[in-house]
Amino acid sequence: MARTRTKRSRKLGLPPGSLVHLGERKTATPGISLIEFDAGGLIEHRFESIEASRNFQPRHKTVWLNVHGLHDPEVLAEIGSRFGLHPLVLEDVLNTDQRPKVEEYGDYLYLVARMLTMNAEGSEVLSEQVSIVLGANFVLSFQERPTGTFDALRERLRQDKRHIRAEGADYIAYAMLDVMVDHYFALMENLGERIDAMEDMLLDRPSRELLHRLHELKRVTLHLRRAIWPLREAVHQLQHASSELLRPATQIYLRDVYDHTVHLLESLDTHRDLLAGMLDIYLSSVSNRLNQELRALTVITTLFLPAGLIAGTFGMNFHNMPLLDDAQGFFIALALMVGVALAMAALFWRRNWLG
Amino acid sequence: MARTRTKRSRKLGLPPGSLVHLGERKTATPGISLIEFDAGGLIEHRFESIEASRNFQPRHKTVWLNVHGLHDPEVLAEIGSRFGLHPLVLEDVLNTDQRPKVEEYGDYLYLVARMLTMNAEGSEVLSEQVSIVLGANFVLSFQERPTGTFDALRERLRQDKRHIRAEGADYIAYAMLDVMVDHYFALMENLGERIDAMEDMLLDRPSRELLHRLHELKRVTLHLRRAIWPLREAVHQLQHASSELLRPATQIYLRDVYDHTVHLLESLDTHRDLLAGMLDIYLSSVSNRLNQELRALTVITTLFLPAGLIAGTFGMNFHNMPLLDDAQGFFIALALMVGVALAMAALFWRRNWLG
Amino acid sequence: MARTRTKRSRKLGLPPGSLVHLGERKTATPGISLIEFDAGGLIEHRFESIEASRNFQPRHKTVWLNVHGLHDPEVLAEIGSRFGLHPLVLEDVLNTDQRPKVEEYGDYLYLVARMLTMNAEGSEVLSEQVSIVLGANFVLSFQERPTGTFDALRERLRQDKRHIRAEGADYIAYAMLDVMVDHYFALMENLGERIDAMEDMLLDRPSRELLHRLHELKRVTLHLRRAIWPLREAVHQLQHASSELLRPATQIYLRDVYDHTVHLLESLDTHRDLLAGMLDIYLSSVSNRLNQELRALTVITTLFLPAGLIAGTFGMNFHNMPLLDDAQGFFIALALMVGVALAMAALFWRRNWLG
Amino acid sequence: MARTRTKRSRKLGLPPGSLVHLGERKTATPGISLIEFDAGGLIEHRFESIEASRNFQPRHKTVWLNVHGLHDPEVLAEIGSRFGLHPLVLEDVLNTDQRPKVEEYGDYLYLVARMLTMNAEGSEVLSEQVSIVLGANFVLSFQERPTGTFDALRERLRQDKRHIRAEGADYIAYAMLDVMVDHYFALMENLGERIDAMEDMLLDRPSRELLHRLHELKRVTLHLRRAIWPLREAVHQLQHASSELLRPATQIYLRDVYDHTVHLLESLDTHRDLLAGMLDIYLSSVSNRLNQELRALTVITTLFLPAGLIAGTFGMNFHNMPLLDDAQGFFIALALMVGVALAMAALFWRRNWLG
Amino acid sequence: MARTRTKRSRKLGLPPGSLVHLGERKTATPGISLIEFDAGGLIEHRFESIEASRNFQPRHKTVWLNVHGLHDPEVLAEIGSRFGLHPLVLEDVLNTDQRPKVEEYGDYLYLVARMLTMNAEGSEVLSEQVSIVLGANFVLSFQERPTGTFDALRERLRQDKRHIRAEGADYIAYAMLDVMVDHYFALMENLGERIDAMEDMLLDRPSRELLHRLHELKRVTLHLRRAIWPLREAVHQLQHASSELLRPATQIYLRDVYDHTVHLLESLDTHRDLLAGMLDIYLSSVSNRLNQELRALTVITTLFLPAGLIAGTFGMNFHNMPLLDDAQGFFIALALMVGVALAMAALFWRRNWLG
Repeated sequence: MARTRTKRSRKLGLPPGSLVHLGERKTATPGISLIEFDAGGLIEHRFESIEASRNFQPRHKTVWLNVHGLHDPEVLAEIGSRFGLHPLVLEDVLNTDQRPKVEEYGDYLYLVARMLTMNAEGSEVLSEQVSIVLGANFVLSFQERPTGTFDALRERLRQDKRHIRAEGADYIAYAMLDVMVDHYFALMENLGERIDAMEDMLLDRPSRELLHRLHELKRVTLHLRRAIWPLREAVHQLQHASSELLRPATQIYLRDVYDHTVHLLESLDTHRDLLAGMLDIYLSSVSNRLNQELRALTVITTLFLPAGLIAGTFGMNFHNMPLLDDAQGFFIALALMVGVALAMAALFWRRNWLG
Repeated sequence: MARTRTKRSRKLGLPPGSLVHLGERKTATPGISLIEFDAGGLIEHRFESIEASRNFQPRHKTVWLNVHGLHDPEVLAEIGSRFGLHPLVLEDVLNTDQRPKVEEYGDYLYLVARMLTMNAEGSEVLSEQVSIVLGANFVLSFQERPTGTFDALRERLRQDKRHIRAEGADYIAYAMLDVMVDHYFALMENLGERIDAMEDMLLDRPSRELLHRLHELKRVTLHLRRAIWPLREAVHQLQHASSELLRPATQIYLRDVYDHTVHLLESLDTHRDLLAGMLDIYLSSVSNRLNQELRALTVITTLFLPAGLIAGTFGMNFHNMPLLDDAQGFFIALALMVGVALAMAALFWRRNWLG
Repeated sequence: MARTRTKRSRKLGLPPGSLVHLGERKTATPGISLIEFDAGGLIEHRFESIEASRNFQPRHKTVWLNVHGLHDPEVLAEIGSRFGLHPLVLEDVLNTDQRPKVEEYGDYLYLVARMLTMNAEGSEVLSEQVSIVLGANFVLSFQERPTGTFDALRERLRQDKRHIRAEGADYIAYAMLDVMVDHYFALMENLGERIDAMEDMLLDRPSRELLHRLHELKRVTLHLRRAIWPLREAVHQLQHASSELLRPATQIYLRDVYDHTVHLLESLDTHRDLLAGMLDIYLSSVSNRLNQELRALTVITTLFLPAGLIAGTFGMNFHNMPLLDDAQGFFIALALMVGVALAMAALFWRRNWLG
Repeated sequence: MARTRTKRSRKLGLPPGSLVHLGERKTATPGISLIEFDAGGLIEHRFESIEASRNFQPRHKTVWLNVHGLHDPEVLAEIGSRFGLHPLVLEDVLNTDQRPKVEEYGDYLYLVARMLTMNAEGSEVLSEQVSIVLGANFVLSFQERPTGTFDALRERLRQDKRHIRAEGADYIAYAMLDVMVDHYFALMENLGERIDAMEDMLLDRPSRELLHRLHELKRVTLHLRRAIWPLREAVHQLQHASSELLRPATQIYLRDVYDHTVHLLESLDTHRDLLAGMLDIYLSSVSNRLNQELRALTVITTLFLPAGLIAGTFGMNFHNMPLLDDAQGFFIALALMVGVALAMAALFWRRNWLG
Repeated sequence: MARTRTKRSRKLGLPPGSLVHLGERKTATPGISLIEFDAGGLIEHRFESIEASRNFQPRHKTVWLNVHGLHDPEVLAEIGSRFGLHPLVLEDVLNTDQRPKVEEYGDYLYLVARMLTMNAEGSEVLSEQVSIVLGANFVLSFQERPTGTFDALRERLRQDKRHIRAEGADYIAYAMLDVMVDHYFALMENLGERIDAMEDMLLDRPSRELLHRLHELKRVTLHLRRAIWPLREAVHQLQHASSELLRPATQIYLRDVYDHTVHLLESLDTHRDLLAGMLDIYLSSVSNRLNQELRALTVITTLFLPAGLIAGTFGMNFHNMPLLDDAQGFFIALALMVGVALAMAALFWRRNWLG
């Protein structure tokens, strides 16, 4: 939907699993940060380059590695070999137009979701791919650029609210999903408010521009649908994954996320139905108004007709015509003209044609 | 659909399970009432505050606790810890824009439904969330404000009609569902009557306002659909829950509720189809009428044409023209004008163009 | 669809299972008739009141009890206690706007279907609820009024054609379903013939009234759909019921009924598609014709224009103008007027604008 | 779709299984032919009447009995009792408006399909019911009239190409299905070609008649859909039948038939989508053209306006008017008229309004 | 969709399994190439004729035989008997309008896919059938003509990148699918770009031609859908095939292909929704513009009316009329004409009718 489409065609002819970054280069240098934690404590690391991390050994049970900026395939290749990731996973991390999905790879799960934000004017939805790899005691997350989306989550880890550190890697993965879904709700609210606003405009003053804004909003709903629908499916799949990676306690939270995605989809459908209805009303309103204007103009033309005919009649050159010699003849004729026009206007007014 | 949307975005950045009341504050003070009963008797309690209830110990087998007014998270937190509820349940009780659903939590079921009522003018459907928690021998119900919806049920308990006290907690939960579904039927009847009324208006006098009322009714159907569709699903899930909490005797009643929700959805679909058909007829009627009016005006214009030409012809300055010197010439010309116009009118009348 | 809607709202606040008759009172006194039979013989009974039947003991294996007229809850209550029916069954028998369904209650099956008949003008489908309770050796059937629908079936029992008496209760239930489905076919034929008739009218003379008849037919299809769709489901469920009540031999007949309902639904879909297509053609035809008429009128206006201009030209008061003094001047001008108009008419005729 | 609908209502009130031929009488005398064959040889028989066949005993393993002409219930009753067919099968063979289906009856399968052919003008699809009963070593086929459809199959049996005689009864049944599906492809090709032809016409010269042909083609697609959709289902059911009657080798061929029916349905959907798109374009084209014509006429009117006003102006009777006494005055006025009209025409031409 | 439809009707009456090439003859001579390889090495062969290959014995484990040009049934028959292929497989290879599918034949799988390419002007999608037979250690691929599609794959085999030679036959089959799906992405990008371009045109200058291009694009989406939808199904089936032919490692790659097909279908749906929305906007724009032009013309007519009436009035022949004798009378009348017209123009301008 975004006009800057990812050029997947650049990969034509390359073998599957080729690490080529498809998508805009959205940040200057990749940033690699790592948080290791367990109930006993938490340490944060930030690596300047992938080489700097090579000798790293974690001292806590759970590791959360976050990478933003994906244009350097070397970084990915290194991480891939370190955590034993399948080439297809690395390829999908780099090709940032994946649809949301979950894939089980034996001892880890690969999850793709999309982070949606609206541009300043609210006319375009910006979409960013977030890849999450969930292992037994690690979470890897890959973003296209630093967005601060997960800062609140990091803060909660630092302060260990509700003993979140004890929860483990699967809870972190869930918490990231939850943050993204909460962002969807904000988008949906925005959308709903704009639809309400347009509905009021529709009644007050339907303008040509409204049509294009309706089309724009329809585009936004299509975009949201493409992000949320497969996410719902993916969460459903997560819930029914046979994987040991997700503890039952986390499953309850996933059910909540699933429920939220269904809620979002239902709101979206309602929005689409309303937009469709508004389009019908708009089209009818505009064509109606134009026709009423045409009618008004035609009414004016009609009002002039009898007056013109009277003038023509008294302009005939017959030798023997009544009134011509009458001193008041001219004014009688004028009165006739005005009188007939008024009578017709009254008639049209009663039939409600002066619109 | 209601214009006062619940601002879920206020929760952005909070951890899952945070107890923040999302939704309008609809009543001044929360009201906590409790009915305990079994075949042997019934006692009613009303607590001023949550502290007052702290030392309460039930003397009868089944306990039904009803809370209305949800803006005080303290009350919920207390109830939650007393009955061992999951944080997500408490969060959902407070976020009053949940979609209807059922969730199994081991030793209790959590059920969300929506109580729908129409505003006085019938243009807006008001929606209130009702949360029900069903345990082995307790039912908790949470409403946004006191509505008297379940008063009849309480009365039946007090009078022990059909030995309802012996039925237990699951029957109470069912009875609450049944009351809500009966309210849906009332709404549906109202909707059907308004559609019938509009259909008659459509034939008699299609007005611009009708269009907006059609759109309004469409909104109402969308709203009803969003409440009933997931409720149907939830009841279906209840029927197939592996839970011990629902006795077979109650399952038969649930089947009846399920059947009612399906009935409601089918009525709704019929209503939507009718509304869509009415929109088509309306649009066609309006455009038709405008076109007929334009045609009528054009017919009038056309009737004046030959008269005008005759007048013009006899207004020419040729020296040698017939009739000009004739004493009756003017009247012959007038007769000609009227005659031709009448002839044309007759022709148009036969072609049915005077409409 | 029928304008006399069943007022389910009259039951708001009553406990589930309350026996209140919802629906029109369609007959004066309830009629209770009973046929008992087996391979060995057949006896018919007709009871004046429910009290009269109290001491009745059947002498043959299979009992078929038919009740028409449902406004006396006492009758139902008595029958219910005699055959051990669940309160919900009795409630559903009385609330005559049930959707078709099958419910298994251990030792009996409860089946609701709708008997559809068209009113005299064919504009409205009348719908009557038929409830059937099938037990091991009894069939109870409840109708809203005496219709004679099942007379042929009774006659076959009396004459024992094809040894129908030996078939048992399940065959009787099937046979009633079969009769009702055969009536649907008659309705569908009627509908098809009316669509064909309208299609011919659509080509010959599209009138405003046609639009309302299209809408009427659409209503009829919606009504039929609401009766047949759940019936199909119900028969499907009967076929897969684990119940012992239906012998394999009867299942083969049920498969036939199922097949008929599917056939009906497919015909209905075709009818709906055709109606939708006809609506498109109608709307296009009407707007087309109006536009063509407007064009025709505008063509006439245009034909008068040059003549008018010529007249105006020769009406100017210049001292030096050609032709004015010519003896044939007037006639030359007239000829010019007619000539130009004819030339333009020829042009329009060639462009096919005289339509 | 065919206007000569089968009158199923003639059966109202008859018991199920009654043998009444519903449908047109399409041939004079029923024809009964029989081919018996196995790897060892083949014998053909043709019976004048059903009595003639009474003492027939086959000498080869597989028997294929073909009957065309169904108006004599006696023939069917005889065959039914000979092969032990269920009364419902015989009823369905005679009621020639069955939907395609497969029914398992223990030791034989009953299969209904429809043979579609297009009438000479290609405006109507003629539909004929073909019933096939497949037993362990016999195939019975029933057609409404002799069509020669299966002649090629008989010829292959006679010549024993690819050792077809060794294949057995199930292969014969498959081969008949295959022939019918091949006919569907021919119909579909024809349909596709006509759609292509209409698409070209749509661009060149959209005419009113096109609309009716679009509707006609839509009817044809509905008809095809009603024949093919249930056939697909039936073949699917055959593939998963638990029956011993279909050998694994034949199943592979059935899979091929199934695939063809899916292919047909997809083509049909494409055709329907194209027809819908063409309808949109047609409606838009026609309304567009009419509006352009109206505009052209209005342009002409407008071009005459200033000339008329000039004439009128110089027709005023003021004593002191410029140009009137000028010898060239008249011609100056004429030049003015023409000049203004040309200027306006140029303006309109630039705005592209002369359309 | 392509106007050169495959004439399946040429096969009417032939037995199933008949080897007749249906489809255009797209290349002069069939080309048969063979690559045999395993981890130990690779040998390439190219056969002039099918006879030349008769004595060929492979020396490596995996054999990939590629045939392009299918009009010589002899070649196919030979290959069929060599690899033990079912007659239906050979038939489907030759009938090049198969829908994509997978069929299991015990010891080999038969897979049909379509290679789509766009013609130079981008108005037509060219579709070519690619048949793949996957056996335990061989892959057969059949194309209609040499396209070079799989050259990159061959090159990777020659260079043994990522030890592809060790992967075996199933990987080769997967890689071919992957190449085709990558081509679909290129088509989809092209489609998306053209839709974006049209959207811009729609806002700037909606022209009649746009309508036909919208219809053309809709055709393209229908065509893509028909290729991709069944392919998705086929890949799904491959994933769940019980076959030993596909190793688990290859299954992971197939999941990736499956995901791509779903992605493609979702993009396609978005494109279709956008096209439908654009059609609505286009139709509304065009009808709107025409109506505005009509209004503008009518406005002009209306502006001339009062001037004409004034001229007519002063053209009347009354003896006693004011101003006629006034020296400035004529100019006062002219000023009046202009003044009234300007006043009306101002009024219309304020009502925004000068459009």
